[in-house]
Amino acid sequence: MMWIILDAFVVAAAISSSDARTVSLGSQRVTKFEKRVRIVDIKGGPDEGLEKLGHSQVVRGWVRTIRVQSTVTFIEVNDGSCLSNMQCVVNPDAEGYDQVEAGLITTGASIHVQGVLVESQGSKQKVELKIEKIETIGKSDPSFPIQKKRVSREFLRTKAHLRPRTNTFGAVARVRNALAYATHKFFNENGFVWISSPIITASDCEGAGEQFCVTTLIPSAQEPLDSKVDAIPKTEDGSIDWSQDFFGKPAFLTVSGQLNGETYATALTDVYTFGPTFRAENSNTSRHLAEFWMIEPELAFANLEDDMACATAYLQYVVKFILENCKEDMDFFNTWIEKGIVDRLSDVVEKDFVKLSYTDAVELLLRAKKKFEFPVKWGCDLQSEHERYITEETFGGSPVIITDYPKDIKAFYMRQNDDGKTVAAMDVLVPRVGELIGGSQREERLDYLEARLDDLKLNKESYWWYLDLRRYGSVPHAGFGLGFERLVQFATGIENIRDAIPFPRTPGSAESSNMPCI
Amino acid sequence: MMWIILDAFVVAAAISSSDARTVSLGSQRVTKFEKRVRIVDIKGGPDEGLEKLGHSQVVRGWVRTIRVQSTVTFIEVNDGSCLSNMQCVVNPDAEGYDQVEAGLITTGASIHVQGVLVESQGSKQKVELKIEKIETIGKSDPSFPIQKKRVSREFLRTKAHLRPRTNTFGAVARVRNALAYATHKFFNENGFVWISSPIITASDCEGAGEQFCVTTLIPSAQEPLDSKVDAIPKTEDGSIDWSQDFFGKPAFLTVSGQLNGETYATALTDVYTFGPTFRAENSNTSRHLAEFWMIEPELAFANLEDDMACATAYLQYVVKFILENCKEDMDFFNTWIEKGIVDRLSDVVEKDFVKLSYTDAVELLLRAKKKFEFPVKWGCDLQSEHERYITEETFGGSPVIITDYPKDIKAFYMRQNDDGKTVAAMDVLVPRVGELIGGSQREERLDYLEARLDDLKLNKESYWWYLDLRRYGSVPHAGFGLGFERLVQFATGIENIRDAIPFPRTPGSAESSNMPCI
Repeated sequence: MMWIILDAFVVAAAISSSDARTVSLGSQRVTKFEKRVRIVDIKGGPDEGLEKLGHSQVVRGWVRTIRVQSTVTFIEVNDGSCLSNMQCVVNPDAEGYDQVEAGLITTGASIHVQGVLVESQGSKQKVELKIEKIETIGKSDPSFPIQKKRVSREFLRTKAHLRPRTNTFGAVARVRNALAYATHKFFNENGFVWISSPIITASDCEGAGEQFCVTTLIPSAQEPLDSKVDAIPKTEDGSIDWSQDFFGKPAFLTVSGQLNGETYATALTDVYTFGPTFRAENSNTSRHLAEFWMIEPELAFANLEDDMACATAYLQYVVKFILENCKEDMDFFNTWIEKGIVDRLSDVVEKDFVKLSYTDAVELLLRAKKKFEFPVKWGCDLQSEHERYITEETFGGSPVIITDYPKDIKAFYMRQNDDGKTVAAMDVLVPRVGELIGGSQREERLDYLEARLDDLKLNKESYWWYLDLRRYGSVPHAGFGLGFERLVQFATGIENIRDAIPFPRTPGSAESSNMPCI
Repeated sequence: MMWIILDAFVVAAAISSSDARTVSLGSQRVTKFEKRVRIVDIKGGPDEGLEKLGHSQVVRGWVRTIRVQSTVTFIEVNDGSCLSNMQCVVNPDAEGYDQVEAGLITTGASIHVQGVLVESQGSKQKVELKIEKIETIGKSDPSFPIQKKRVSREFLRTKAHLRPRTNTFGAVARVRNALAYATHKFFNENGFVWISSPIITASDCEGAGEQFCVTTLIPSAQEPLDSKVDAIPKTEDGSIDWSQDFFGKPAFLTVSGQLNGETYATALTDVYTFGPTFRAENSNTSRHLAEFWMIEPELAFANLEDDMACATAYLQYVVKFILENCKEDMDFFNTWIEKGIVDRLSDVVEKDFVKLSYTDAVELLLRAKKKFEFPVKWGCDLQSEHERYITEETFGGSPVIITDYPKDIKAFYMRQNDDGKTVAAMDVLVPRVGELIGGSQREERLDYLEARLDDLKLNKESYWWYLDLRRYGSVPHAGFGLGFERLVQFATGIENIRDAIPFPRTPGSAESSNMPCI
């Protein structure tokens, strides 16, 4: 346990003056850091705390509920280390009981308790804390908006600063963290190097979508509302004078780190990015964010087959990781958010993924005895209804990888297949969410790549550095992109992507802004 | 080893048609992903490959040098998995030797070789590969700018897409990755939850510096250079009409995720952020970037002492991690970049950090028999020369933590000490770099915080959510911020911060832009 100044009765180890280094005037040693005991450490083990019966324990956290009865008071305390609260049983003889009587301890208040772990009389938990001492750390104003009654997730989106104090958002935060950590573990264990791709970029090299402009031409001073359009520097013909901007030219927020990742993959063999990306698209859906995190591995000396193998292994690894390490939170999602999610995820870990060419997928959909809203035709992009039919109805919930899409519906950098019509692309479809991963083998042949840029009337000069990778020791390489919040949705069952990220950024308007000041 | 289509002679495991699932039309199983064997796996062990003598090995990588002699050719191949090259010895009887004779294999080319591991005759390595078969994957144009002769890091900054193919930048990338991974390991092992703080924010709540504006009012189309100032929407009085912007109000790039982190710490106890932050400051120095990554842990139920203990433990953990896991790269830095860096870092791991109050530090500097450029006076911020004097000359290279700074030179959210003059702040100073970490206990008392906002004439309304954290179950809490690229500088000895991040972003001008199109 750590040393806490404000902690009246558990000063574990203060620095005594005899300990102090006397190297120079007033200097002392820094206290040693030790892992702090939290509720998960007390009751998160296989015996749910039974192995610690009779031990004295300290808990600090926030009051979820309090039930004052004549002879005994029950306080549920949560510290966010796990979903479970610690049930605290307070008798009138406990030190600090006057604070209970005075009504200081209400939902939302922070408290500090010390007691002995005993077997619980209730059925909801195996152990509870018989309180010897209770202290209020911080009172909670009666206006605290998150009371015991269930509140909607829509309402909680307006309370982004308080919603992590609920069961659902606490669980999402822990599982999101576990997915991120498992991501770093998987790639590091397999020899991949994490690359931070740049956030500010010169232009939309990938053509992936609308971009945000990043500029200092508009004063970012304390009063941006007073910024005048006339104050923006312009050239003689009335154009924005970019030479006066911070970078001396237009700059934008990145839509993808892939092309940057390729520069490192063609030096270090296997790399991955994990960072924020942006789309200034006016999509007010449950699947779109203006700011979201992407994971983009890139493998050199690899083809589409390797890419699919890597995507499959990655997805199975991270899903297995949360099933093993976030059992309590996953059970919560299984009960309250999406029934059956644990089985569905277990299938992802255990079942072989299926792969199917786009051409075969179209054939399969054409033969389907099902009426689709969007008719299927070779050359069209698959719609969500088609993707779900394939994963959910044809392959019984198994993830399905569709390969070799028509080149005209895919990006310029994908490797052309020998048929001249398709590219070595692959999308991983999962039940309920649809497309979770999109990847491809990249076009490593300089002449093919230049021809494709010409076909699409893209400016070869702005891709000079990308073409350089093909001029100097080009290698077959492949990679994929995964939207991290989609993965969180898939892994938790949370319906709206705005609940899968701590501070969602979505289009707003003056009347109904979705961006709070947080 | 993975299955490689383009690989003529090491098809390890093709999917046979009998393996294919016949669930539906054309579907097959996805190949299993296996860790690929790279140079580090062959010669990165304790015996530097000697234990694998006589084994057949495959290497794919890029040619660093080639020496063609009459009877034997030496090719140094690097695949980025480690600093070392694999020395390949090619005799004229090797399959594919005609490619050597034809001059296809030059510096920068990518090749694929197969051979037998034998004891090396040279002194630079213990093993080398006696080549049986060699194949050129991608030729390198003779204009390849990174030839054997040493090139300056300034020059390489203009070749951001190729510089990872050099020893220095390969090593920096690997150590940077190890530091990031160790960061996630440390915090996860100690029960911290990673929080992605938002990149786009409404305003500079912290007052930490100049911000970039993020907007869609300036068209981000393919031809931003044609954007006209007059096309920007304005209100009747000529102000920018923010209601038409993406978020319906001004938006900026974040300067810090700390305040966001506090919202999660006061729900989950211990959290950390690790993400990009931005400063639109025109600082063309070796220590400043416009875009950099920050690590910001936040601990609830914690005071300044806990904060220092955590910062110390964190720093010692990540430094120990790279000393143990990146030996070869660290030896390289020790020899070529900063002599003695390994000893200096070992001291950080082993020595106790020293702490000293700001008041004592000023006293110490006043008594120093040294002439400083900036005179020292209580109430002034410490300059780099002062910080270096303290860590380097007074405490013999030990990191020093200065605590309890005057409140007037620190941010509004820091907890006021009982003396009314200082705040519970701390800066960790390290030799050579100076300030590496800045942290504080946060003001958890609502009345003190509101008074401080008033003192500084900050708008209380825009902090409503931050004040809410003090209204509802406030707790003592503390945290710190660490600029990740400064840590990379500190850990590698790299002098210029632009070489500590893959794609540096610094102020540019139309004449000499520092932002390439990458």
